Amino acid sequence: MTTSSAPGKVYLFGEHAVVYGEPAVPCAIERRARVTVERREDERLRVRANDLTLDGFTVTWGGSGTDPRPDVDVPTPLVEAAMGYIDGAIEQALDAAGEDGIGFDITVESDIPLGAGLGSSAAVVVAGIDAAARELGVELDAGTIADRAYRVEYDVQDGQASRADTFCSAMGGAVRVQGDDCQRIEDVPTLPFVIGYDGNTGDTGKLVAGVRELKEAYGFAADTVESIGDIVRSGEIALDDGDVEEIGRLMNFNHGLLSALGVSARSLDTMVWAAREADALGAKLTGSGGGGCIVALDRTEQTHTALEYTPGCEDAFRAELDTEGVRRER
Amino acid sequence: MTTSSAPGKVYLFGEHAVVYGEPAVPCAIERRARVTVERREDERLRVRANDLTLDGFTVTWGGSGTDPRPDVDVPTPLVEAAMGYIDGAIEQALDAAGEDGIGFDITVESDIPLGAGLGSSAAVVVAGIDAAARELGVELDAGTIADRAYRVEYDVQDGQASRADTFCSAMGGAVRVQGDDCQRIEDVPTLPFVIGYDGNTGDTGKLVAGVRELKEAYGFAADTVESIGDIVRSGEIALDDGDVEEIGRLMNFNHGLLSALGVSARSLDTMVWAAREADALGAKLTGSGGGGCIVALDRTEQTHTALEYTPGCEDAFRAELDTEGVRRER
Repeated sequence: MTTSSAPGKVYLFGEHAVVYGEPAVPCAIERRARVTVERREDERLRVRANDLTLDGFTVTWGGSGTDPRPDVDVPTPLVEAAMGYIDGAIEQALDAAGEDGIGFDITVESDIPLGAGLGSSAAVVVAGIDAAARELGVELDAGTIADRAYRVEYDVQDGQASRADTFCSAMGGAVRVQGDDCQRIEDVPTLPFVIGYDGNTGDTGKLVAGVRELKEAYGFAADTVESIGDIVRSGEIALDDGDVEEIGRLMNFNHGLLSALGVSARSLDTMVWAAREADALGAKLTGSGGGGCIVALDRTEQTHTALEYTPGCEDAFRAELDTEGVRRER
Repeated sequence: MTTSSAPGKVYLFGEHAVVYGEPAVPCAIERRARVTVERREDERLRVRANDLTLDGFTVTWGGSGTDPRPDVDVPTPLVEAAMGYIDGAIEQALDAAGEDGIGFDITVESDIPLGAGLGSSAAVVVAGIDAAARELGVELDAGTIADRAYRVEYDVQDGQASRADTFCSAMGGAVRVQGDDCQRIEDVPTLPFVIGYDGNTGDTGKLVAGVRELKEAYGFAADTVESIGDIVRSGEIALDDGDVEEIGRLMNFNHGLLSALGVSARSLDTMVWAAREADALGAKLTGSGGGGCIVALDRTEQTHTALEYTPGCEDAFRAELDTEGVRRER
């Protein structure tokens, strides 16, 4: 039996603009998915996912004559997606180990809110590949896990996946993503993130399409996308300098430009203002927007409390930048 | 006895960027200041200002031995400013008529919220010059009144005045302002504005300085200011085409860029979202920001109701684009 874990992530800077070749900086956060894998005698996969949905579900598939439908009341596409990620992770581990036809009992636990844009699926895949490969006696380096996890997300998400989530989850820390090029940013300062979650999930495809329409219709929208890239470049310098006040200012500006591009939401702006009025160094939406999460850079430890009492904030938690990526758990 | 009135204004596009030579489009709104002027036998000015403050005040000055302090509980700087505007307006009218040493009884009534960034002082000055000049038997054209009113605002506001407010109030309609060049935009569509007011007054000087600092520190902030100019240029085309949906989209984008520049406020964003969720075509802050007003372009007549029930919105009202500028009232 092997357990591995991998972190979720926030976008410190650059979401949406990254679609157009600008750099972005996702950061791993101290919220993890844990995947426990144990070899079975047969070829079946049995998955227990306690926190992957609110209710949790158990499903067994593979082998002969089994139906891959869980016997619980969770939305079928969600279950299929979750099974897709886990199935894909196991396949990658088997492939890496040169094995085939081995079954596993798999338990998934996650304290990353699902569907919140915090990279929970990437974390499950990354941790799953690591745990299953180790269970097969193979130790993969983080870069290989990131690559293989990306392939899983790419398949499950019909070619719409970004390398950012899986790379960030596998490597940990702050990461620079530009196109297919992903690199870890070294020596970043402590970043005391506070995350606020409105309980909603934005429609990423629709939001990305909306930005594309604006960008194609208006020169100033294309310029705004470029300005986000400029913010990221300034942000890299601020990270290198350890200048957290500057990082906060840049987050605020980044949020405004994302709002201009139409990807904020009432709930996100409400949480952003709550964080700023609680003296956060900066706050912005993270991910595709339209709903989901904001990330604030805390100064006084008041941000968390302020968000907890903000109407429309379903969940607020502290989660520092996590410099560790995927790892084996004892 | 002569009564004249002049409208307040909102910025449809371009505030803040106009400081750096970009164009802006203020629009006169169906909310007016009315100034009634009657020649006195002596050289004194007696002013009754019923709505210029919440409580109203009466003050008499000029002539010999009078103290220009009102006998009511209103903030002195406010009274001094108000008297400055009215004194200046009368001076300009006397100058235009080639007269001197004539006193007046003046009554000011205004349904433009004071200090809300809706150009109430400009409207008072414009209406005051027109009424006093007519009382002296002189009819001034709107352009002359705009010029003279600007001189008054320039003096009272220590050289910080913009030509936009006085020009827009004198001419009415939609106006294009760029540097010192002000022009009326002809044949604009009906613009059903709804205005939400949070009861606060932003510190214009501080807000303008904040934008300047950002612009000097960051290339992307300078680009954002230019992008606002581009929005204004697109907005002029949309006005010419009578495309109100496009005007709404541009207002939304403009608001986002103003937010990025740090001049929005929690209350303003709250009102902007309330308007958008009530199906407004677009919504943005108007004026220097930090507090004050938002302007929404209504589609369904629900915007006004939505704002009325929005916490933090002290006053919400409909006010269409007013194509008439300064005018004599019967």
